[in-house]
Amino acid sequence: MIRPTNRVPVSGLRGHLGRTVTICGWVRTLRLQGRMQFAVIRDHTGMVQVTHRRGGPGDALEAALESLTAESAVRITGTVTANPIVKLGGLEVVPESIEVLGRAETPLPIDERTGPEQRLDWRFLDVRLRPEARLAYAVQTTLEQGMREYAYAAGCVEMHTPKLMGTASESGAEVFRLDYFGRSAYLAQSPQFYKQMAVAAGIDRVFEIGPVFRAEPSFTSRHATEFTGVDVELGWIGGVSEVMAFEEDMLAHALARVADAHADAIGEHFGVEVTVPKTPFPRVTMAEAREILRRGGWDPAGAKADLDPAGERGIAAHVRAETGHDFVFVTDYPASVRPFYHMRPAGRPDLTCSFDLLWKGLEITTGAQREHRYDVLLRQAAEKGMGTGPLRDYLDCFRYGCPPHGGLGMGLGRVLMVLLGLDSIREVTFLFRGPNRLSP
Amino acid sequence: MIRPTNRVPVSGLRGHLGRTVTICGWVRTLRLQGRMQFAVIRDHTGMVQVTHRRGGPGDALEAALESLTAESAVRITGTVTANPIVKLGGLEVVPESIEVLGRAETPLPIDERTGPEQRLDWRFLDVRLRPEARLAYAVQTTLEQGMREYAYAAGCVEMHTPKLMGTASESGAEVFRLDYFGRSAYLAQSPQFYKQMAVAAGIDRVFEIGPVFRAEPSFTSRHATEFTGVDVELGWIGGVSEVMAFEEDMLAHALARVADAHADAIGEHFGVEVTVPKTPFPRVTMAEAREILRRGGWDPAGAKADLDPAGERGIAAHVRAETGHDFVFVTDYPASVRPFYHMRPAGRPDLTCSFDLLWKGLEITTGAQREHRYDVLLRQAAEKGMGTGPLRDYLDCFRYGCPPHGGLGMGLGRVLMVLLGLDSIREVTFLFRGPNRLSP
Repeated sequence: MIRPTNRVPVSGLRGHLGRTVTICGWVRTLRLQGRMQFAVIRDHTGMVQVTHRRGGPGDALEAALESLTAESAVRITGTVTANPIVKLGGLEVVPESIEVLGRAETPLPIDERTGPEQRLDWRFLDVRLRPEARLAYAVQTTLEQGMREYAYAAGCVEMHTPKLMGTASESGAEVFRLDYFGRSAYLAQSPQFYKQMAVAAGIDRVFEIGPVFRAEPSFTSRHATEFTGVDVELGWIGGVSEVMAFEEDMLAHALARVADAHADAIGEHFGVEVTVPKTPFPRVTMAEAREILRRGGWDPAGAKADLDPAGERGIAAHVRAETGHDFVFVTDYPASVRPFYHMRPAGRPDLTCSFDLLWKGLEITTGAQREHRYDVLLRQAAEKGMGTGPLRDYLDCFRYGCPPHGGLGMGLGRVLMVLLGLDSIREVTFLFRGPNRLSP
Repeated sequence: MIRPTNRVPVSGLRGHLGRTVTICGWVRTLRLQGRMQFAVIRDHTGMVQVTHRRGGPGDALEAALESLTAESAVRITGTVTANPIVKLGGLEVVPESIEVLGRAETPLPIDERTGPEQRLDWRFLDVRLRPEARLAYAVQTTLEQGMREYAYAAGCVEMHTPKLMGTASESGAEVFRLDYFGRSAYLAQSPQFYKQMAVAAGIDRVFEIGPVFRAEPSFTSRHATEFTGVDVELGWIGGVSEVMAFEEDMLAHALARVADAHADAIGEHFGVEVTVPKTPFPRVTMAEAREILRRGGWDPAGAKADLDPAGERGIAAHVRAETGHDFVFVTDYPASVRPFYHMRPAGRPDLTCSFDLLWKGLEITTGAQREHRYDVLLRQAAEKGMGTGPLRDYLDCFRYGCPPHGGLGMGLGRVLMVLLGLDSIREVTFLFRGPNRLSP
């Protein structure tokens, strides 16, 4: 058995000049000429040329190369040789053995001209063929790990809250229902109720990265029926501003890690500069935002209580022009557009202690201080016309000493979209799920 | 607003002797005597006594303490005072202000005599009342982070694979079905197919921690319908032994981190010593295991192809006696008890390149090298009587150059159970889900 310790990643070949090594990867291209045979091999770290001079009848290597197909998985042992005329780093591997570990059928089902839906059908090939698609997951790994690093240093505990719920959270719309041993269960739209429960359980600060599910028939570039949420909940806060401060510091920390690890690669593959944002981020109240937008002709009827995507882009452009900042917290959303459990500022029952965070005009987070006073919560639920029956487990959390708390939910895919300058969440999701897409 | 920067955790009070601080926590006990009032306050770091000498009529503090209820959430400002006769660390807080942030109703719905099911009904209180229950999540955080640290250093990329599938994986039994915009979707029993897809996509090594769902009507202490899985998939392996080597090194690394951070607390609260296991772990083939067990009277009819829980405990006891080791890999499971996609050793179609990892007699992992050759996979699926229709997306992955690969799935809750010496997975799961439990 060849052990991976013998395998040299393509990016490390320069350190083995003149030595015999084993490389493992896929056949990207083949060029079979009269005297010479060339194959370009791609692994997860780069591409290298394999060069063989034909030996004529009986040359097993010649025959092996002749019968290769594009995207076959191969293991090649050979000598790393400097050759200044080779484009891929001035290196080539002169093979001694070629082993096909997984033969690819021909032709491949996708190529450069394939449309986006068919590329999703063959996502594993789509991602394999495009180094930048794989880079997105390396960036995701660093980004998440940077957020965890910040959160744990700040006292968070990692929780895994259930995705199966006995009652539909919130309104019941946009929730997936499933068969559960003869009854119904529902998929969590957010870990929010459970992370609040953890705060009530004495877990001071909660961190979770996990799937969330939305039965929304939305077909936009930024919606999915299943996506990865980054959730934080902070106990004993003095106000929602603490949640915003936590988020901006966490993002700045994580983006600094991404810049350290991937700025060059992101620049090369996506043409985007990774900027570590200054803190604090600009803040604008919803009332101010509407005022600013209306001066620019947005919502001339004055009918919109919430920002639509055009409004989000408009306020982001304004803040960018005024401050040079790409992030902005929009705060104090009207109670009419926020759920019953958002806390309201003292004396302003029409507003909530809430925020959205926009990055380059895209909403990446919703957060709030939650109402923790049982009587106020009951009143606000009644005001929104909600029956307390399905909310019983949630409401019970507030009857036995619940501290003030607040938190945020961030869409990881949206953060990646903006970070990499991509147009669609489909591009950063390994296997996208939408109303019309459940496969592969 | 009081900002958390002013808040001192109870464990940090000693550093503030003689100073005025604010503590936030829950009223654990009240002792209201003729001249003195005592309250013990618990936060996420410990407990401290608050001591007040009654001032008589007009003493607002006296009135505040008099009206407190157990488990109310309070914020208390006062002076940290040394008092050697106080049991809780020889410290007390002499209050200047007492604020009730969340009043608890009386009586509490659970106490020390409450049975396990009702404790689960009031899980947030159950966890709040027991410091060791909260310790489990701090340990979980360190354990996970230790595993990630190892996995990333070893070249893994963190993936979030979909939990919604268009077809039922494997046999279709034990899979939850849900309504998905007028059709059916299924909840993933494991990220396995998708992490294999990621390897086929050129993501060399895959790491994921996320929920997995099993529609199994099991009521044992080690089963749940939703639990947290730790999944790894390694591309380009030379054999399944590489997967086992990865796992034992990852566990040893993560357990060393746990020992560093929590050995004392785990000893104190659970009476368990955290041992960092030596590597390599002992290995025993399934054939050897059966042989050993039968000598001890297990399965006298010779009818069992797989280990039952008694067999797992028996082989663990044997290995422990022979080697002193608490871990053992049981390898080479018969093909009859393993799924079609497990690779079989050359010339032994009756066996698989697979393993389980037992820790103190409990199965915590199943792993295998996967069959990556399309034709062999088709043959093995047919042999198991499986139609290829629902497997189409899976099988297509192997048609265009799939390298050898293998991986493992570990139950995080089971690892925690054994690590903390607990009897049931319910104890380490924040909100347990079983056939009869979907709430809170």
